[in-house]
Amino acid sequence: MTSTLSPVSLTAIDAPGQPTPSPELEELYRGFEQELLVPLWTEIGDLMPSSPRPGAQAHAWRWQNLLRLAERSGDLVPVGRGGERRAIALANPGLGGAPFATPTLWAAIQYLNPGEDAPVHRHTQHAFRFVVEGEGVWTVVDGDPVAMRRGDFLLTSGWRFHGHHNQSDAPMAWLDGLDIPFSHYLGTTFFEFGPDAVADRSTPPRSRAERLWAHPGLRPVSQPGPADSSPIAAYRWEHTDAALADQLALEDAGHAGVVEPGHAAVRFTNPTTGGDVMPTIRAEMHRLRADTRTATRREVGSAVWQVFDGAGRVRVGDREWPVERGDLVVVPSWQPLTVTAETELDLFRFSDTPIVERLHADRVQVEGAPA
Amino acid sequence: MTSTLSPVSLTAIDAPGQPTPSPELEELYRGFEQELLVPLWTEIGDLMPSSPRPGAQAHAWRWQNLLRLAERSGDLVPVGRGGERRAIALANPGLGGAPFATPTLWAAIQYLNPGEDAPVHRHTQHAFRFVVEGEGVWTVVDGDPVAMRRGDFLLTSGWRFHGHHNQSDAPMAWLDGLDIPFSHYLGTTFFEFGPDAVADRSTPPRSRAERLWAHPGLRPVSQPGPADSSPIAAYRWEHTDAALADQLALEDAGHAGVVEPGHAAVRFTNPTTGGDVMPTIRAEMHRLRADTRTATRREVGSAVWQVFDGAGRVRVGDREWPVERGDLVVVPSWQPLTVTAETELDLFRFSDTPIVERLHADRVQVEGAPA
Amino acid sequence: MTSTLSPVSLTAIDAPGQPTPSPELEELYRGFEQELLVPLWTEIGDLMPSSPRPGAQAHAWRWQNLLRLAERSGDLVPVGRGGERRAIALANPGLGGAPFATPTLWAAIQYLNPGEDAPVHRHTQHAFRFVVEGEGVWTVVDGDPVAMRRGDFLLTSGWRFHGHHNQSDAPMAWLDGLDIPFSHYLGTTFFEFGPDAVADRSTPPRSRAERLWAHPGLRPVSQPGPADSSPIAAYRWEHTDAALADQLALEDAGHAGVVEPGHAAVRFTNPTTGGDVMPTIRAEMHRLRADTRTATRREVGSAVWQVFDGAGRVRVGDREWPVERGDLVVVPSWQPLTVTAETELDLFRFSDTPIVERLHADRVQVEGAPA
Amino acid sequence: MTSTLSPVSLTAIDAPGQPTPSPELEELYRGFEQELLVPLWTEIGDLMPSSPRPGAQAHAWRWQNLLRLAERSGDLVPVGRGGERRAIALANPGLGGAPFATPTLWAAIQYLNPGEDAPVHRHTQHAFRFVVEGEGVWTVVDGDPVAMRRGDFLLTSGWRFHGHHNQSDAPMAWLDGLDIPFSHYLGTTFFEFGPDAVADRSTPPRSRAERLWAHPGLRPVSQPGPADSSPIAAYRWEHTDAALADQLALEDAGHAGVVEPGHAAVRFTNPTTGGDVMPTIRAEMHRLRADTRTATRREVGSAVWQVFDGAGRVRVGDREWPVERGDLVVVPSWQPLTVTAETELDLFRFSDTPIVERLHADRVQVEGAPA
Repeated sequence: MTSTLSPVSLTAIDAPGQPTPSPELEELYRGFEQELLVPLWTEIGDLMPSSPRPGAQAHAWRWQNLLRLAERSGDLVPVGRGGERRAIALANPGLGGAPFATPTLWAAIQYLNPGEDAPVHRHTQHAFRFVVEGEGVWTVVDGDPVAMRRGDFLLTSGWRFHGHHNQSDAPMAWLDGLDIPFSHYLGTTFFEFGPDAVADRSTPPRSRAERLWAHPGLRPVSQPGPADSSPIAAYRWEHTDAALADQLALEDAGHAGVVEPGHAAVRFTNPTTGGDVMPTIRAEMHRLRADTRTATRREVGSAVWQVFDGAGRVRVGDREWPVERGDLVVVPSWQPLTVTAETELDLFRFSDTPIVERLHADRVQVEGAPA
Repeated sequence: MTSTLSPVSLTAIDAPGQPTPSPELEELYRGFEQELLVPLWTEIGDLMPSSPRPGAQAHAWRWQNLLRLAERSGDLVPVGRGGERRAIALANPGLGGAPFATPTLWAAIQYLNPGEDAPVHRHTQHAFRFVVEGEGVWTVVDGDPVAMRRGDFLLTSGWRFHGHHNQSDAPMAWLDGLDIPFSHYLGTTFFEFGPDAVADRSTPPRSRAERLWAHPGLRPVSQPGPADSSPIAAYRWEHTDAALADQLALEDAGHAGVVEPGHAAVRFTNPTTGGDVMPTIRAEMHRLRADTRTATRREVGSAVWQVFDGAGRVRVGDREWPVERGDLVVVPSWQPLTVTAETELDLFRFSDTPIVERLHADRVQVEGAPA
Repeated sequence: MTSTLSPVSLTAIDAPGQPTPSPELEELYRGFEQELLVPLWTEIGDLMPSSPRPGAQAHAWRWQNLLRLAERSGDLVPVGRGGERRAIALANPGLGGAPFATPTLWAAIQYLNPGEDAPVHRHTQHAFRFVVEGEGVWTVVDGDPVAMRRGDFLLTSGWRFHGHHNQSDAPMAWLDGLDIPFSHYLGTTFFEFGPDAVADRSTPPRSRAERLWAHPGLRPVSQPGPADSSPIAAYRWEHTDAALADQLALEDAGHAGVVEPGHAAVRFTNPTTGGDVMPTIRAEMHRLRADTRTATRREVGSAVWQVFDGAGRVRVGDREWPVERGDLVVVPSWQPLTVTAETELDLFRFSDTPIVERLHADRVQVEGAPA
Repeated sequence: MTSTLSPVSLTAIDAPGQPTPSPELEELYRGFEQELLVPLWTEIGDLMPSSPRPGAQAHAWRWQNLLRLAERSGDLVPVGRGGERRAIALANPGLGGAPFATPTLWAAIQYLNPGEDAPVHRHTQHAFRFVVEGEGVWTVVDGDPVAMRRGDFLLTSGWRFHGHHNQSDAPMAWLDGLDIPFSHYLGTTFFEFGPDAVADRSTPPRSRAERLWAHPGLRPVSQPGPADSSPIAAYRWEHTDAALADQLALEDAGHAGVVEPGHAAVRFTNPTTGGDVMPTIRAEMHRLRADTRTATRREVGSAVWQVFDGAGRVRVGDREWPVERGDLVVVPSWQPLTVTAETELDLFRFSDTPIVERLHADRVQVEGAPA
């Protein structure tokens, strides 16, 4: 039951709260190493801080850089079986080079040339697409063709077969969000290949899922009961935009609805439960009026923001970035976030909040609301 | 602890399963009467049948008759404090003359002349309106003006102040549905008067509730969590109609969605839960293609159907009625129902199924699906 | 669509809130009667009172009277197929002679002579037994023999086959509680006969259900998930008594636990959910120290109390009864209840609160807590 | 937005599914590194295997080794503010030397000398203790003294102040289980110091929590509603043992209850919900008859087993260990587990299954049940 080359390595140090170094203590620590043991007293500062000290760091990525490298990948990297997707993921600088935007969340730019097919597969990871610009690709989810257009939020919840194909004359890029890091961490991943290309190459403007489910406050009687993930394959921009505009119009008329002055926000939901679209991912769209600033807010759990339109600044802790269309910012757990809009500013946000809330670990702190 | 005039009255009879009549038995029964007791053995046939034998009866009411009497009431009966509403309720012939469509459900025609106000009040009973024809009335729910138009389904869930006013030049009639009988039975009723007239007489085409909540798959971030009843004040006909049309178009294309061949149906839902709009009432809209017939179906729980458009026949047990726009049919618990469409037939349905399902008493039996 | 002999009967009266009587109004009312319609304005006072005005009345039954009549029934009324049970139910004086303790609840004394069998059947109604005195009967629930002893609370949730047999030399009487009136009202009743006598006549002290489920905070891994009703067939007096004694001991030591000074109470629960034992019935045991009095409390929903031990007084509204072992008192919805203990007083209580709570109609008002 | 020393490091390789290496591809990869990006196509094999391939390894630790090193720590390492606890944690050989038994679970031996106090603190991590041998320590949880004895399972759910003190003449060691790794991963940790020693040094045999909550199927009426974690502070061995013995006795009599032949198991539950004791941790006790073997079972999620009594063998994948009292074995996600009992064998098990189940990622596969 021992390991000759132990990964455990302990050092006796002379510090408050630590046992006094001595040859006997060193011998004890060697025993720990041999038996694959680590005492709490040397680790408690790291493991039990007074508030979350995530390893992930706040960071920003410029969409123009992502797009430039994705285009170049379009020249050099074929899409096909094996590599599966021409997707390029954000690697948080605090997470050792792994392709993880946060400990739980994957965020990537995916790029498909005219006429290309991304082959069909399925996996237990939950996925969405968010389209900052362009159109012309259909993602086919369990046989249902789903058009992708600017502003749309598109779902591929876990274990559904899906492939994409570009029917247009132009390349198309979009944001992929998944819970790959969380699934990898927890050891819950299953994966299966499907056909090399999608079977149904029709290009309807609306998916079958939308025709059944995307009617406000209505559900088909033929599909009762709660579902783990939302059955709505596509949340169209026209609806999201109208909902945000309505909140600001209500504010203009003196009525409730916005989350704070000048700040409208909607959450994408699972219409069978009213909850989040997928078990592990929350997704929202925010709109700030020009020249407004959000209160500074900390939340347990990590998030990724992407600018959909407009210009402004995003501050996380003591760092701040100017942002414009497509730019991405990662917000680790419990880091204070402030967003400032220079023009009217639309932002897409996704986070691991459903994990945090389902495990009753959610906490929020709001400070410094603007006067 | 005795009652000189007991409501209990027992008769010893000579029948299978009954004790042999005798002077001693008669004396025992007199003792039961005096002590306000009733034996199971005389009542078990009524109380414990092999399947539900409701007291309520299937029955149909013609909208033209209701409308004629409502118009006459418009001449003779003022609307105001005390009587509160010019509402005329269906009295199930099996329920002793009480204004109860079924043991749990109230269904009434309400009628408002041009310029009239129905005064503001609130009650714990849950209410809705369904509009078969006409427009011009606004119902103001907790201060939010809600336009009423043909095909709309409008909510006033329990304990919300509400009044109506007719801003048009024509009278307007509509269907009111409530859980008044159930609330009366269970002893849960609270009631309060508000002002004699609504405060906000504005006439917006959409309510504030709709602007916040009637966007498909979206919810305002400012209002998290589940609510007992739906926050959507109005489910507009244009959405309901589109959802039904989509189901039939999917069927035409060979895809799933309808409840049975030629039969589309949507349920009005609470977007914060995905469940029914109110704790005690389910509401649905059904569309049958011309010349189709539903399977015969029994359900535990009672329902009321109203024809919205088209013509056909409704059979309940061994009775059948021809129906057209506005006609109402009551279906008691476990009575077999078959609907036949002569033209395309749209029907509104409401029922007490949420009560039955929350108490785990739901059963459904479907027979004789059309070939 | 008309009925020649209408159950509806309306009278025009000259009263506030009512339309002025006239020949035209009388003609309108005849039209309502003919079409089976009832206006709200004549009924609103009854249907929409400012707070619940139940038809059921508070009333008390003496156990000695029940027992005397049950013994006499034991002489005159055989137990067997058809009558099924020698059960004699409380008939609330406000409910027209029906065997209903409250609008929702059935409460009866059941009596079985030595050597008798009550035949096996099942029904969708939920049932329990509570034993005020005696022992020697086993109720066999889905084949599992369950001993009945003083103080035990025994479950037969819906659709489980059950029969009873008396293995002792003495007759035995107990309290049956069911949701028969509610099931009858809602139209949810199904019933099936089983064998004429129970198959397993063994007399184990503990049922198999208890051996699997009646361990504190533990559940068998082989039976995961929530169940509609509790799987615990018998809640034994020794546990109930200990739990009540512990609460009073905690109070003596200055710790929380009792519901109010001198008043301990435990609720019987479904261990798979933590909620009530059955979908429609709540059951509790209360213990008051000698010379204490509860606060006066109103609750939406109706209840039945039975004295298990001790002596005191029960006041409901403006009526008060002295009570002792076995006496039963019915408390209609929203009637103020005060219980006074002369000796230490143990009371069993059951109510329809789960119905009220699941439909979000619950309200409680507590007044006049003792100084 | 760039990082001069990128943690990202990419290598172009010539392999199936990979783009053909070229200077242009190398240049692209350098661009990725500079912009903190990682392509999916180089990582998909690791991130999306066909079934879970956890980094954690199956491993066994001998209790005698743990105890020896804990005793030596008792000589050399004081317990007090700063280090907080004399706890020594299992470090999974696949997790880089971190004190994590699995990616989510912490498992440590804690050791307290006679007369010692572990100071009071609280943290959002959920904790339990399981006692393999000994007694004499009280853990005081939110002021409630809880005795610790062999076989007991003791809870300290998140954010409750707690300290321990040894009132006996002998040292005491026990197993601590927490969700420290998961909390660290997700960034949900909050921590606060309390007093240096517990305030209430009384030594009652039962805690107040038990007196309120540890009665089978009963709950105090004064504490309604669901709680995130179980309110039962101590699950006593006498109850666990009786429940296991009952299952085997039922099996002897031919009745259902065991999970498979010769294998009894109970789960510790939250009596307010029927679910797991804490949001992130499941805990169970298993008993195998002598000379039996479990079916081989894989589950998504990781677990730690500790032998409570008896002797046998534990196989995980292609490794097998003989085990006896106190020995611990870690089972990573989806690794096949088989337990063989030589004598009657009692095992304690805890796992992260509640996380997996709440996120709907649970899967189980059972093979090779013994003939």
